[in-house]
Amino acid sequence: MGHLETIKWDEGCVVIVDQTKLPGALEYKEIRTSEDMWYAIRNLEIRGAPAIGIAAAFGLYLGVRNTPDHETVSELWETAEEEAAYLSSSRPTAVNLVWALDRVKGVIRDDIASGKAVPEIKENLLKEAEQILREDNETCRAIGENAYQELRSFNTLLTHCNAGGLATGGYGTALSPVYVGLERGKRFHVYSDETRPLLQGSRITAFELSRAGLPVTVICDSMAPWVMSKGWIDAVIVGADRIASNGDTANKIGTYGLACAAEKHSVPFYVAAPVSTVDMELSSGGEIPIEERGADEIVNGFGKRTGPSKGVEVYNPAFDVTPADLITGIITERGVCRFPFNAYLSEVTRNVL
Amino acid sequence: MGHLETIKWDEGCVVIVDQTKLPGALEYKEIRTSEDMWYAIRNLEIRGAPAIGIAAAFGLYLGVRNTPDHETVSELWETAEEEAAYLSSSRPTAVNLVWALDRVKGVIRDDIASGKAVPEIKENLLKEAEQILREDNETCRAIGENAYQELRSFNTLLTHCNAGGLATGGYGTALSPVYVGLERGKRFHVYSDETRPLLQGSRITAFELSRAGLPVTVICDSMAPWVMSKGWIDAVIVGADRIASNGDTANKIGTYGLACAAEKHSVPFYVAAPVSTVDMELSSGGEIPIEERGADEIVNGFGKRTGPSKGVEVYNPAFDVTPADLITGIITERGVCRFPFNAYLSEVTRNVL
Repeated sequence: MGHLETIKWDEGCVVIVDQTKLPGALEYKEIRTSEDMWYAIRNLEIRGAPAIGIAAAFGLYLGVRNTPDHETVSELWETAEEEAAYLSSSRPTAVNLVWALDRVKGVIRDDIASGKAVPEIKENLLKEAEQILREDNETCRAIGENAYQELRSFNTLLTHCNAGGLATGGYGTALSPVYVGLERGKRFHVYSDETRPLLQGSRITAFELSRAGLPVTVICDSMAPWVMSKGWIDAVIVGADRIASNGDTANKIGTYGLACAAEKHSVPFYVAAPVSTVDMELSSGGEIPIEERGADEIVNGFGKRTGPSKGVEVYNPAFDVTPADLITGIITERGVCRFPFNAYLSEVTRNVL
Repeated sequence: MGHLETIKWDEGCVVIVDQTKLPGALEYKEIRTSEDMWYAIRNLEIRGAPAIGIAAAFGLYLGVRNTPDHETVSELWETAEEEAAYLSSSRPTAVNLVWALDRVKGVIRDDIASGKAVPEIKENLLKEAEQILREDNETCRAIGENAYQELRSFNTLLTHCNAGGLATGGYGTALSPVYVGLERGKRFHVYSDETRPLLQGSRITAFELSRAGLPVTVICDSMAPWVMSKGWIDAVIVGADRIASNGDTANKIGTYGLACAAEKHSVPFYVAAPVSTVDMELSSGGEIPIEERGADEIVNGFGKRTGPSKGVEVYNPAFDVTPADLITGIITERGVCRFPFNAYLSEVTRNVL
């Protein structure tokens, strides 16, 4: 199948697939500073909640590594805090970013507490980032297993945006059951919403599924309800950027409308995400910060102006929140959570690193 | 306000605004043959159900005019039938196209029956096309009056695609109440779905509303349910390409999903259309032919490839059908029809030319 490595550590720098160039070109980019990583996350060269968590962890290491004059562990800690705050400012909605940064900071704290010296702590930072990447691979695989068990009787899935291998370190989340299925001779047919404004669905999801030899049909986002009304969709499965403790789920803008349409047509609606996406500190989705992005992504996004240049307002939220009661199941690496979600989510998030 | 004349007759040829060039350029194009008119309709240089009806009527005249060797009225009739069949093949969904062609053919039939000669019949063809254009202006104005009475207590409207002045000969259908309101000091704020794949909403609706000095906010189609959930939309109003006798309405792809979202959020959902859009011969929307267009409109639409070039299927229906039970009212020049629509639609279509 030839999985693409979205992000990896390679001889002193991070190498990412520059996803803004897909599907026209498969280009790799070397990242050597935390500033470059901030920019890569902000500009969606690397994207997808799990992937930007991994990227931020490596970014924190790069920031600390590139500050060579730490004489004490306190100075190192100060740098780490500054770099973490800086990197977490790149995008506000996905909680995995903060989760990964907190986890790396936890390693520093533990190392300081156990009396380790600056050089050793820096080495451990890199090890932790690599460990997060490795674990993400295993996590995605486990999500895929659980999701495959849930979806195996279906043939046609619809997805939105890209929660595939390129959004994570491994198989992806929403697309993981499709890859697990392929290994077992099951060929799901995936309808991929193109996902305006940045077209991650047609550019990235369609790219990775067709590359794997799987049947994929691209549609415009607005066609999904019509396609459902024809009975062509057995289930919807999407990723998540942040899940509140009650199950309300922030994901790419358009997910909410898709969930409304799925409800109308009695199509099961699944969210697939690692437990690191769950933010138990939020009681509901209303508390999730929603990133708003610039007008040009909508009216000037293809090197060609597609809306008037003045006298017109543009609203461009990058995410929306799907209320828990529209979600059939939240599929994690630790099992499938069902409505009402609180108890399930408490259970699966217990003792998460 | 400075209405744009979408289509007009000017010294021996038809002049249209080439809508594929908007909003970058306001270009006029001269049409001198029925082949050029077929191409202009097919390629959406002129679009919108009422406008393509008018265009087809002029196209039929051009086709007959450019065949100079009619010795008998039978030969003229034969040409008219061929040209009408040819022009109606340009786009299959909008019934106004067929309606306008039938109306012009009716004039020929009557003229033949009353013994008129070939040159006079040809002159009358042009007069009839001009009459259809004039009537469309009056019709749009009347739709706007009726719609304004219905919507005047609201402040924020959401629309999809373009059913404005550029889709008709005059004020438009769905946007007509906005222009009528403006004349009376009422400034509706319009949310305009960009309307993938061809972006008539951001290119044309936003263009004509901002040109009129009205507040307009462009959103991606997938954002509409989210915007409704915030309580920002008082009513949805859209045009129509064909309405079955039970009220089921074919309109630009995405309209159906919008109607589902409106239902979910208890937002009134209106269709505005001339009675010539109603096809009483169809018992329900399932009988309306739905045009499918090429893949490139979706994955290669901006001079830049936005999806893989092979191994991927693309589904591109140009329209969908909104079932009657999701429609609050169908607003025509003869009044507002309400569910169940059959009796209302029978009434308003009585004695339609």
